[in-house]
Amino acid sequence: MESHSPVADPGHVVKSSPVMIDGVALNGPTLDVSAAEGFIQQSMAIIMEDAVRKATNVREKVCEWRSPEQLKELLDLELKDGGEAQSKILQRCRDAIRYSVKTTHPRFFNQLYAGMEPYSMVGSFIIEAIKPSLYTYEVAPVFTLMEEAVLKKMMEFLGWEEGGDGIFNPGGSVSNMYAMNVARFHHCPDIKELGLSAVPRLVMFTSQECHYSISKAAAFLGIGTKNVYVVPSDKRGKMIPAALEEQIKKAKNEGAEPFMVNATAGTTVLGAFDPIEEIADICEKYNLWLHVDACWGGAALLSKKHRHLLKGIHRANSVAWNPHKMLMACLQCCAFMVRDKTGLLQRCHSARASYLFQQDKFYDVSYDTGDKSIQCSRKPDAFKFWLMWKALGTSELERRVDRAFAMARSPEYANVCFWYIPPSLRNMPESPEFWQKLHTVGPAVKERMMKKGSMMVSYQPHGDKVNFFRMIIISPQASREDMDFVLDEIDRLGQDL
Amino acid sequence: MESHSPVADPGHVVKSSPVMIDGVALNGPTLDVSAAEGFIQQSMAIIMEDAVRKATNVREKVCEWRSPEQLKELLDLELKDGGEAQSKILQRCRDAIRYSVKTTHPRFFNQLYAGMEPYSMVGSFIIEAIKPSLYTYEVAPVFTLMEEAVLKKMMEFLGWEEGGDGIFNPGGSVSNMYAMNVARFHHCPDIKELGLSAVPRLVMFTSQECHYSISKAAAFLGIGTKNVYVVPSDKRGKMIPAALEEQIKKAKNEGAEPFMVNATAGTTVLGAFDPIEEIADICEKYNLWLHVDACWGGAALLSKKHRHLLKGIHRANSVAWNPHKMLMACLQCCAFMVRDKTGLLQRCHSARASYLFQQDKFYDVSYDTGDKSIQCSRKPDAFKFWLMWKALGTSELERRVDRAFAMARSPEYANVCFWYIPPSLRNMPESPEFWQKLHTVGPAVKERMMKKGSMMVSYQPHGDKVNFFRMIIISPQASREDMDFVLDEIDRLGQDL
Repeated sequence: MESHSPVADPGHVVKSSPVMIDGVALNGPTLDVSAAEGFIQQSMAIIMEDAVRKATNVREKVCEWRSPEQLKELLDLELKDGGEAQSKILQRCRDAIRYSVKTTHPRFFNQLYAGMEPYSMVGSFIIEAIKPSLYTYEVAPVFTLMEEAVLKKMMEFLGWEEGGDGIFNPGGSVSNMYAMNVARFHHCPDIKELGLSAVPRLVMFTSQECHYSISKAAAFLGIGTKNVYVVPSDKRGKMIPAALEEQIKKAKNEGAEPFMVNATAGTTVLGAFDPIEEIADICEKYNLWLHVDACWGGAALLSKKHRHLLKGIHRANSVAWNPHKMLMACLQCCAFMVRDKTGLLQRCHSARASYLFQQDKFYDVSYDTGDKSIQCSRKPDAFKFWLMWKALGTSELERRVDRAFAMARSPEYANVCFWYIPPSLRNMPESPEFWQKLHTVGPAVKERMMKKGSMMVSYQPHGDKVNFFRMIIISPQASREDMDFVLDEIDRLGQDL
Repeated sequence: MESHSPVADPGHVVKSSPVMIDGVALNGPTLDVSAAEGFIQQSMAIIMEDAVRKATNVREKVCEWRSPEQLKELLDLELKDGGEAQSKILQRCRDAIRYSVKTTHPRFFNQLYAGMEPYSMVGSFIIEAIKPSLYTYEVAPVFTLMEEAVLKKMMEFLGWEEGGDGIFNPGGSVSNMYAMNVARFHHCPDIKELGLSAVPRLVMFTSQECHYSISKAAAFLGIGTKNVYVVPSDKRGKMIPAALEEQIKKAKNEGAEPFMVNATAGTTVLGAFDPIEEIADICEKYNLWLHVDACWGGAALLSKKHRHLLKGIHRANSVAWNPHKMLMACLQCCAFMVRDKTGLLQRCHSARASYLFQQDKFYDVSYDTGDKSIQCSRKPDAFKFWLMWKALGTSELERRVDRAFAMARSPEYANVCFWYIPPSLRNMPESPEFWQKLHTVGPAVKERMMKKGSMMVSYQPHGDKVNFFRMIIISPQASREDMDFVLDEIDRLGQDL
């Protein structure tokens, strides 16, 4: 057991005569750490008051709307030669919080994340204070092991009995890129060295309801957006397996090489789950990599009651799952996992930098996980999830997921999609004029709620449907009363439309 | 002017009889926010004491080394059904900090980042507390404008008089990927839709000393690592322009299509700056995109004395620059900038998701910058830099850069590369045996410094050179006395080798 006492060293004994180099005095530190501590302490009080207490208070506004022009003036954005006093900077912190949207407010229903999670928040503060980077065990020992533990547990919920491999990364979009890169490397390892210009046209498949990151990823990875073959979905938003098989046959007839299918578990707008089991059968038949984008829907795996929605996910070759969505880990917290246990993830991404991944280290360098990553510096996002999971336990996570389902009572997931029909349209027949008018209701109500600051709910058109509201219900801070409030408030805001 | 008073709404008035859905009571929030606040408050005290005060104290250890096996036992990593008491979680926070490496310690010289920056740290705490995501102005108004302001200022230092465009993103590696994607899209816009299998073999050029992310990016983007043509560097580590031209001619003779040159401003190991002006001439001659990877060296632009190292950077088509390195913004803070002002960045990456980038919003949607990005959720990293820049002013940033140069007095930048010759080798001729023995000194000294926890300095072999130390000097907490300490300590640790 090593000693825990501080390093036996005299510390900063400043020499009597200053050492000058190029006109710069090098003696002693130039940062006054205790003054810095005072500033941090004062800031923490402001964060506690404004960014935690007030931000989550249902009686406060969700947002304090200002137009870009107004806000530019208020914030005095320009960066100058001279610095500013700490008191001024503290005011800037207050202003930054004040004019920001409070995504932790109980009435923020605008995105696929929401709410305040105190354990995860504290985990993120710790990360920001000690600035670890996850490439090597020597620089991030604690977080390397925690990432491993979290991935292992998540893979249990995927039903991967043999385990697998994985990596946390900055966003579900990036996870989907990892999937595409691993899938094509698996299909043809030469691509890593030779590139796509040396191989036949590769084609992948996804539903029309998938997240737009699939298209972005195909462009970014050099596959091309037209080589993403779009499979029709049913009216609930689920991929139609027979249509998938048709698309695969079509691609093969064209002489293209299918390599991957993306199934979505929890679509962005409707919250639909593609039928994974049937898609997996087709992937097996045609020897295609099955990736499941469960960024949004993965949380349902924690619910014994609802996990059937992802039936068959144990057969996926890779999965993307963002604990920062329904499970409420602080942004960003996104896992990409592969069922492969042969080191595919590392072989696919490694570049073996000799300045970082030295092989003559004194510890087991298999803990230097950085070469699995497309990043160099990488934040230890898994810690934010690990800490909250320790605090809440699986059973409380499950209760929260079940409550979100109960609160939403949506035909699919926690996405509640609806039109608000204002009085003026209530007796109108469903003519083109009706739909055209209805289309303008969402944007108008949204503008009013933003300017009032009472809540935030998203709207969008979708397929052949005109603008409708999409409300996302996640947070345990939200209650039945908030659901009533949303409907009443939309009606108040839209009465005269 | 809108009112600043809280929303006039009765808030959570809990109904008398519970509403049960699927066995779940929906009345009232289930998270006790005031208990959560108490926990956050207690955690902040621990963070202040352990992760700020103690972590930055030169008399404390840089790290408390434990092997993976020991640490797994100490941390009790397994995630269970039941949750844990808050007191237990607070202890877990203390342990996570204790066994983590203190990268903010004055004697952490191991990576291209170091030190504690209080303003940036507070900026990051604010981000973590309010959880903004930078896709649309409506969800992140403050941070959208701050990112714009910071990019504008950084582009001034690049000498881009007409401005340009840019985006913060999670890492210099990702910035380099952006560069490659924008460069090839500029070269041939069809690639976005058709992919690389539809075009001739694209080839890019970089020096042998460049960061390994160039190779990773080429693999990830489907270009292929063999299509990165490596240009020799001189003995200081700078790209040899004549050799670049030779490689371009070679590629053309092979029938390949050159599209981009990557110049490095501040190489990872030696800190060398490629001669941008001469490289820019060659790029103009052959009509190639010039990207400058200034992730590490960009900071020198803030110094009137040292900015000549990047002479010619105003001619670059794109630049990667990480303020989280020498400028000490909290991890991660990485800017990718393009000189183009025609919307190339957005055209290259857009997917026009209709649920997020609605065109019928009530404000100017050009402030919805998310479609420039390859991510969906994106953290507002620019804020961390904006806040510290406001506090310190350009002049203090410049002083810090000048001091790092003065402290290092390296032939190039703030990378100090050296061998430690232990007594047993001091009289040995420079035979193969000498080099072989010297090669083992770095790893052995590193093991001892880690186990003692007195400091952290990196080592690596490089080209034909056996293992040497690479010490990176950034932080204003580090002093001349720390420089002496490092040399004395290495000598103490390596006496018997």
